[in-house]
Amino acid sequence: MALATGMRVPARALLRAWARLPGAALGRTEPAACGGGGVRRFGNQRVLVEPDPAAGIAVMKFKNPPVNSLSLEFLTEFVISLEKLENDKTFRGVILTSDSPGVFSAGLDLREMCGRNPAHYAEYWKAVQEMWLRLYMSNLVLIAAINGASPAGGCLMSLTCDYRVLADNPRYAIGLNETLLGIVAPFWFKDTLVNTIGHRAAERALQLGLLFPPAEALQVGIVDKVVPEDQVQSTVLSVMAKWMAIPDHARQLTKNMMRKPTVDRLVKQRDDDIKNFVSFVSRDSIQKSLQIYLEKLKQKKG
Amino acid sequence: MALATGMRVPARALLRAWARLPGAALGRTEPAACGGGGVRRFGNQRVLVEPDPAAGIAVMKFKNPPVNSLSLEFLTEFVISLEKLENDKTFRGVILTSDSPGVFSAGLDLREMCGRNPAHYAEYWKAVQEMWLRLYMSNLVLIAAINGASPAGGCLMSLTCDYRVLADNPRYAIGLNETLLGIVAPFWFKDTLVNTIGHRAAERALQLGLLFPPAEALQVGIVDKVVPEDQVQSTVLSVMAKWMAIPDHARQLTKNMMRKPTVDRLVKQRDDDIKNFVSFVSRDSIQKSLQIYLEKLKQKKG
Amino acid sequence: MALATGMRVPARALLRAWARLPGAALGRTEPAACGGGGVRRFGNQRVLVEPDPAAGIAVMKFKNPPVNSLSLEFLTEFVISLEKLENDKTFRGVILTSDSPGVFSAGLDLREMCGRNPAHYAEYWKAVQEMWLRLYMSNLVLIAAINGASPAGGCLMSLTCDYRVLADNPRYAIGLNETLLGIVAPFWFKDTLVNTIGHRAAERALQLGLLFPPAEALQVGIVDKVVPEDQVQSTVLSVMAKWMAIPDHARQLTKNMMRKPTVDRLVKQRDDDIKNFVSFVSRDSIQKSLQIYLEKLKQKKG
Repeated sequence: MALATGMRVPARALLRAWARLPGAALGRTEPAACGGGGVRRFGNQRVLVEPDPAAGIAVMKFKNPPVNSLSLEFLTEFVISLEKLENDKTFRGVILTSDSPGVFSAGLDLREMCGRNPAHYAEYWKAVQEMWLRLYMSNLVLIAAINGASPAGGCLMSLTCDYRVLADNPRYAIGLNETLLGIVAPFWFKDTLVNTIGHRAAERALQLGLLFPPAEALQVGIVDKVVPEDQVQSTVLSVMAKWMAIPDHARQLTKNMMRKPTVDRLVKQRDDDIKNFVSFVSRDSIQKSLQIYLEKLKQKKG
Repeated sequence: MALATGMRVPARALLRAWARLPGAALGRTEPAACGGGGVRRFGNQRVLVEPDPAAGIAVMKFKNPPVNSLSLEFLTEFVISLEKLENDKTFRGVILTSDSPGVFSAGLDLREMCGRNPAHYAEYWKAVQEMWLRLYMSNLVLIAAINGASPAGGCLMSLTCDYRVLADNPRYAIGLNETLLGIVAPFWFKDTLVNTIGHRAAERALQLGLLFPPAEALQVGIVDKVVPEDQVQSTVLSVMAKWMAIPDHARQLTKNMMRKPTVDRLVKQRDDDIKNFVSFVSRDSIQKSLQIYLEKLKQKKG
Repeated sequence: MALATGMRVPARALLRAWARLPGAALGRTEPAACGGGGVRRFGNQRVLVEPDPAAGIAVMKFKNPPVNSLSLEFLTEFVISLEKLENDKTFRGVILTSDSPGVFSAGLDLREMCGRNPAHYAEYWKAVQEMWLRLYMSNLVLIAAINGASPAGGCLMSLTCDYRVLADNPRYAIGLNETLLGIVAPFWFKDTLVNTIGHRAAERALQLGLLFPPAEALQVGIVDKVVPEDQVQSTVLSVMAKWMAIPDHARQLTKNMMRKPTVDRLVKQRDDDIKNFVSFVSRDSIQKSLQIYLEKLKQKKG
């Protein structure tokens, strides 16, 4: 048992600050501005950050068209933006969402895994690991406003949050569907899913590559709440208010206690995990499969 | 696979003994008497033990007004009483309940953690550990008749039981609400909760310090049954009958197999856990926080 | 993440093969024939194997009257048949079911544990371990068509499958009921159950030796689907089709990732587990208990 200094931050004061948060925070249209703690939107090309310092929260919007795939550049920018918010005491909560409703994130960018050299594959995989490590151990309250499909890596980002709200649209399926593409989810993707929905449900979902539509997603527990699409924003804000009412330090230590053993498993074998990925993705058979798959995607678009 | 000698105790005989148990066992008013195996109530000031040797069960009633907080004296008496029952072959099942309906137990006694010396803090924390170790590994069938609120340490006591029946009263909330006070639940509180409601539900409940009212408590699985307040007693007796029908030795070995890994985690680092507690609670900032909190409690009463 | 070569097996081709599977596959009556990959039924006295090479699946029917108990001979034949299917690339999925509806399997054969010498007990226990190890780590899609009661070892066989369909008959209860007989389930039985229904439900089910009738079995998650008895076959075939649509290699690696830590726990201490069993079952008290129990069973039949 540990009495945290956070105890001295009265919850009432937080709620007062909260009351100043405009309801339209998620959809604000101020001009973008670079910088850490400004009142206005900052960020860069692929991750829009809309800070609300008065409320102590920020919205991070994925903007990597067409499907918010997790390219190396996206991941790099995302981690930098997250780190900024993490280090700025102004912010206590962050909402993850997509700038283009319809797709939360399509997951890993296969183009980073095809036709490059081993050094690139290693750099890419390290960036994917880094994104997960930062999110899963974040001291911030993280809430996912899932306003689009979130397969594979997109699902993983949701799973690292403290709470997940999914828009009730039958096309917004969520899950780790790697096997459908002949791919195996890394063990830390698996661990994150097991922590969320339990061993049996994870075993079935991972083997079958299940993508859960909203009602099933709620039932299996891969999301915490399903609401009509136009209520995602208000729901997320009201959920955030509840989480922000908890003294930070106590909440952070508790979160750390729950998640550290899972994170340590990757930290301990991070280099091996990179080596495995590089050696695997460098195989001729895999490169061929990826090329064929990417060709098909191009034809679809054409 | 292990054939237990308990096999030779025919369940039918147990049920016959059971039939002799008066329905009013939980509310008997015989004069208290000290001693291990007497038919009459024994115990002390803070823990009333109502034995029913014919039935093989005893009721342990918390009586530490006003809120059954887990003071050092209460914990010492509780562990002694439990050990007596554990060592007396007459008793195979024990019911934990409160002598003052309305509060099951308010949990740890903050007065034991404030304004004392390090030796006292160490002694107190060891007693809290001891209570958990004895309860969680008890060879007895333990059933919680939760007839009042059971936050924090009160919830922990319930969680160590084999079955939890909660009275259907909206004021009887149950949960590990440590973060609400800026406190972090120890890892073995956390482990006990994860074992009961799973990783995800525990992560959310612990971070938010959730106190579940009866319907939610049942849904999340932190209790096994919710019944009207006047049916708690009869329900607990009928549940106990089912558990007592199982050969003791086989049941005990099974319980041990399920719980030992969790218990071993504390046993391995018990001294470190005490040191951590003492060092933490001795901090000036924590002492101040506790003083302020206790002052407020006094004013409320005044 | 691992791209599997299975990616190159188009799911559509599998479904075409599937379409050739006769609906009556589970009840075919061709004459038995020994041999690995023939179109006709092969097998032996106690385990009937009905292969459907065109569909890539086989049905293994337990035929060890009167209750499909897991005798040493049954286990040996079962493991050999399973290994044959495992090594024959023709087969990707296997359905486990009983040739005599009413009993799926009554579990371990107590006659193997009574009145024999230590060498026999050791051989028997090794065969039980082998059955579990092979089933739980099988590369095949395994689906249980549970058309009868499946207590103890029968339940364990179901639990090793990837999916469980139970016939909706109140007499077809399923569970690890060892404690009812004064017996303790081995730790790897326990691990398999915990993986399936979670820690708390397993703790309660194992201590009480619960046998779940269909509706409760579904609710606790010990089976995945309950259907009317005459729909078990069609349901299992349609479930199998879904699992066969997943690229094999990716699915197998995923299954392995989920189950290997559990399997490794037994593999690491397999000899100790055998020694424990032999020493335990050799005790006079246990031998007496078993003799009395077997006598009673004989009288029942007489």
